[in-house]
Amino acid sequence: MSPPKHLTGDKAGIEEFLSRFDVFLFDCDGVLWSGDHLFDNVAETLEMLRSKGKQLVFVTNNSTKSRADYKKKFDKMNIPAKVEEVFGSSYSAAVYIARILKLPGPKNKVFVLGESGVEQELDAEGVSYIGGTDSAFRRDIEPEDFTNLANGSALDPDVGIVLSGLDFHVNYLKLATAFQYLQRGAVFLATNTDSTLPMAHSLFPGAGSTGAGLVKAIGKEALSLGKPSQAMMDAVEGKFHFDRSRTCMVGDRLNTDIQFGIEGKLGGTLAVLTGVSKKEEFLAEGAPTVPMAYVDALGDLLG
Amino acid sequence: MSPPKHLTGDKAGIEEFLSRFDVFLFDCDGVLWSGDHLFDNVAETLEMLRSKGKQLVFVTNNSTKSRADYKKKFDKMNIPAKVEEVFGSSYSAAVYIARILKLPGPKNKVFVLGESGVEQELDAEGVSYIGGTDSAFRRDIEPEDFTNLANGSALDPDVGIVLSGLDFHVNYLKLATAFQYLQRGAVFLATNTDSTLPMAHSLFPGAGSTGAGLVKAIGKEALSLGKPSQAMMDAVEGKFHFDRSRTCMVGDRLNTDIQFGIEGKLGGTLAVLTGVSKKEEFLAEGAPTVPMAYVDALGDLLG
Repeated sequence: MSPPKHLTGDKAGIEEFLSRFDVFLFDCDGVLWSGDHLFDNVAETLEMLRSKGKQLVFVTNNSTKSRADYKKKFDKMNIPAKVEEVFGSSYSAAVYIARILKLPGPKNKVFVLGESGVEQELDAEGVSYIGGTDSAFRRDIEPEDFTNLANGSALDPDVGIVLSGLDFHVNYLKLATAFQYLQRGAVFLATNTDSTLPMAHSLFPGAGSTGAGLVKAIGKEALSLGKPSQAMMDAVEGKFHFDRSRTCMVGDRLNTDIQFGIEGKLGGTLAVLTGVSKKEEFLAEGAPTVPMAYVDALGDLLG
Repeated sequence: MSPPKHLTGDKAGIEEFLSRFDVFLFDCDGVLWSGDHLFDNVAETLEMLRSKGKQLVFVTNNSTKSRADYKKKFDKMNIPAKVEEVFGSSYSAAVYIARILKLPGPKNKVFVLGESGVEQELDAEGVSYIGGTDSAFRRDIEPEDFTNLANGSALDPDVGIVLSGLDFHVNYLKLATAFQYLQRGAVFLATNTDSTLPMAHSLFPGAGSTGAGLVKAIGKEALSLGKPSQAMMDAVEGKFHFDRSRTCMVGDRLNTDIQFGIEGKLGGTLAVLTGVSKKEEFLAEGAPTVPMAYVDALGDLLG
């Protein structure tokens, strides 16, 4: 493994690096912005890449937002982007269910643990679902629920998939209901399995944590449709039909973004130092995940 | 390892087995009863053991009930038992906190994820706590909660312990609050870590599952005060001061009850076949956990 090339300030190096790729997959938080703080020259950098004819795709594990929700975030940040350029883990899961898994009906309904972002993307792909934000599931479990879940009378016989995403309204009733579907053989999917969610300059439980109860109860992991799972790469490729050797993944996290690109056998990976991972982590002897190149900040690509 | 002795119908074998022990630790569900169904001759068997001068202790991982709650269950089943003979995982946790961990004040308050059984036992041991069944935590998380949890203004500076038990009212607010305490160095305890809870002839999420989100978020396991954790055996011994070589663990689950007894170096273990584990599991070549003896049902000890 050759050491990663530091491109900040290296005009010729940047030119050469960019020339190798037609498609750039971008992580968002920690790369374009941090929370509500936009990094310097981000819009200009993306514009420069577009002017060179590069295709841009924004790949995010955030499952609570739909692509349309995410587009609003770009608008608010004054970054030109199209809904079609956004690829979130909820959309990834919907694409996987509708275009790859393709369970035969009628037993192909989804029981959702998650917020409206998941529901919007399932709607967009024509996948039917129950649970999610339905207020019928946002209540305490009652003694009769145990009986009706156990004997199946409270279950929908058409549910064949449980999809677990970040759920700010997680509760025992939903957990118990999803667990019953899994015990009856439902396919177990997760939008993503990030253990934490960065918020308000601290860490909060992520999708992997609100879904962990189900993993523990059933005793096996869900198939994740978020980074670094290659099921997400397959879904991205299924939509954009890119040449992996001419594609570069740009991200701030070594163990999700950069690993995602390396495992996906992309032509290149570019780390930025404005997020979670520090350069010491990949410059260290024997580092497990090493990007092809790195910049201090995305805007450095302007040269 | 010698094969386990089948005692059902073996009068002399039973007599010899019982003579080896002064103390019997009993698991309850699957041994004495299944849900609301009492097994045959249970009261008579316990009476026979008492008449021979044996000490009985009912050791249960159920953390939602206090010892007093459990006593009511015995009364309802018409099984003579004293509150002092019951040792639940909530009581085990309270004993551990008050008599073994003994954190110096004022930073020794407990944040509870669980039901009133946990609170009652903490009260009984004089341990102060917040959370639990407090209605202030039984609500949806709001945007300002993220800020107030992150900056600590919504946290009690005296909390030094997070205790996770089976919580039928688990929610994101409690999970996020507990996670903040853990990130600030609180000791992480669990009443027990059973993945499932047998109810209504089916399986529901157990304490290990409602607490799994916290384990995933912080990236480490809690110290469990329930079977098969030896921290529970230490707590039982701390209270009853028995001779381990003259003590027998009776249970239906190999990987909790029987393992608990073996790891605790008790004089013996007795499996009953009225619960979860089947005899094929411990009679199989190379079985990982093998009891010293077994009976088809507890009542068979009457001979």
